Amino acid sequence: MPANVPDAPLVISEIGSRHIGGRVVTLTGLPKRGRISTPGASVHPIDPNGEIVVGQLYAQYVRLAAPRSPHPLLMWHGGGMSGVTWETTSDGRPGWQMAFLRAGFDVWVSDAVERGRAGWAPYPEVYPEAPYFRTGREAWEEIFRFGPPGSWHADPQHRRPYADLRFPVAGMDNFMAQFVPRWATNDALTQSAYDALVGELDSAIILTHSQGGNFGFRAACAAPGRIKAVISLEPSGAPDPEHTDAVPLRGIPHLFLWGDYLDRHSFWVDAVPKVRRWAEALRAAGGTADWVDLPALGIHGNSHALMADDNSDIIAGIVLDWLRGQGLV
Amino acid sequence: MPANVPDAPLVISEIGSRHIGGRVVTLTGLPKRGRISTPGASVHPIDPNGEIVVGQLYAQYVRLAAPRSPHPLLMWHGGGMSGVTWETTSDGRPGWQMAFLRAGFDVWVSDAVERGRAGWAPYPEVYPEAPYFRTGREAWEEIFRFGPPGSWHADPQHRRPYADLRFPVAGMDNFMAQFVPRWATNDALTQSAYDALVGELDSAIILTHSQGGNFGFRAACAAPGRIKAVISLEPSGAPDPEHTDAVPLRGIPHLFLWGDYLDRHSFWVDAVPKVRRWAEALRAAGGTADWVDLPALGIHGNSHALMADDNSDIIAGIVLDWLRGQGLV
Repeated sequence: MPANVPDAPLVISEIGSRHIGGRVVTLTGLPKRGRISTPGASVHPIDPNGEIVVGQLYAQYVRLAAPRSPHPLLMWHGGGMSGVTWETTSDGRPGWQMAFLRAGFDVWVSDAVERGRAGWAPYPEVYPEAPYFRTGREAWEEIFRFGPPGSWHADPQHRRPYADLRFPVAGMDNFMAQFVPRWATNDALTQSAYDALVGELDSAIILTHSQGGNFGFRAACAAPGRIKAVISLEPSGAPDPEHTDAVPLRGIPHLFLWGDYLDRHSFWVDAVPKVRRWAEALRAAGGTADWVDLPALGIHGNSHALMADDNSDIIAGIVLDWLRGQGLV
Repeated sequence: MPANVPDAPLVISEIGSRHIGGRVVTLTGLPKRGRISTPGASVHPIDPNGEIVVGQLYAQYVRLAAPRSPHPLLMWHGGGMSGVTWETTSDGRPGWQMAFLRAGFDVWVSDAVERGRAGWAPYPEVYPEAPYFRTGREAWEEIFRFGPPGSWHADPQHRRPYADLRFPVAGMDNFMAQFVPRWATNDALTQSAYDALVGELDSAIILTHSQGGNFGFRAACAAPGRIKAVISLEPSGAPDPEHTDAVPLRGIPHLFLWGDYLDRHSFWVDAVPKVRRWAEALRAAGGTADWVDLPALGIHGNSHALMADDNSDIIAGIVLDWLRGQGLV
């Protein structure tokens, strides 16, 4: 647990969930199939044509009996991941869902459209193309920055993580088990579902990771009156200030948090300046955009998995202190 | 809430999750692709070849500060569904996860291999064929028995549910949003992951729905010393007593619960006698196999969605009374 939250049992009024957004589509022209539903059962004829729901997200909420913040915290995962990002870390420590519940927030952990409990829709009938499956190498060398290019190996004994890496690589298989397929075609569907989620709440604080960052920035643009803060862990993208007006967001404090090794991986060398332009636009509009570079604070070795690195409690504590500084808890 | 559980806030020591089971496989020979990860980002070159983890399940646990039962309750969903089955009902009432937490059980809600937060693996590279997507019609007319064959219509105004149906059909779109794709090829992978879950616990009670039933019966066969009871809501299949010995299970009480209209739908006309043979084998082995036909108790109109019908609290209460009768809580 972060040092700045109580380590006591939680008193909870409800754990529940909803699917939000989405619409009914009708599939037609598909050939019939036969399925055996469970061993020993007869062949069950299946007509795949008909109505299905597509474009929904899944959100699980935990409501405290006595929340200390009036604003629920929405936790939005990154690409190729699900809400599991915020749960128990891959090496078995309590995750940020627990940390922020203990800090007094009602927490909503969602699975975006196409991922996890949100389900997904057939391609090419609904989604135009096949998904991507993240490999261990892509995660290790490109996106999560566990080691330099060329340091991944199929055999765990031969992997070469950064010497001061904070991600617990002994749990790499568990971390890979969290990956879910992703599509590159569903941004509009996903944004629409996130906007619908925000639209059902009186107020909210958005906490995002990676690909979730862009959805969070745009959700704030769509409903600036409801969003009380936006916290972005290494957002992989942001609106282009030439096409999106940051002025409506000047009353919404933003926090950007960044780990280590960002200058050694081309994906991030490309992404960070684009996000920085959005932070600068927020500031130019008169808003708050706090840009926290952890190595500049003397905190070295953090990967892209800030909420799963072995100092994840310290980083959660930084976020909590910032929220307290904003008067939000 | 069921009448026989306290309606007070829950005191919880931890909410957490794990992926269990699965193995690393290496994909080879696949063509490279280019992906734009978030709007405005550059094209990111993707090599889909490499290591991925397949065959894992996802389990989320809620641990009470002071459980009344020493045995955690494992809640296993049916085919084409995820653990969402046990959460808030499609018309917004608290689900069975909450009911059994309030009754004093630590609860583990899982997503089986290939579904929800378990993720899924590429086909034809890992799974041999494409999945099935459940249509509203298949759910309504065939599996969940909301109305007779021919009673589904794309327009909700023209659907004809059974006159005394207990499923809240006004929430049908929400229910359809819970559906996830399913494969007919992954029974061995799924069973293996469920067996691994049971193997990590000292003791457990298994509560299943539909396709989950067969996995539950077989998990009890694989680890009879750990399983304290098996509760099966309308299991769609069961071991064949000619090939599976029920004698090791004679110390494990089994409860079978059945709704209405089972004689009007060919899927169930086929399935029920096969399950009955397993119940009879358990009894012949000297075990307890309680077969509860709800209409015979005067409870009419229940669909296959016993945990989501509008009398789901009453049915949860029947299960709880049975567990108390077995001395398990």
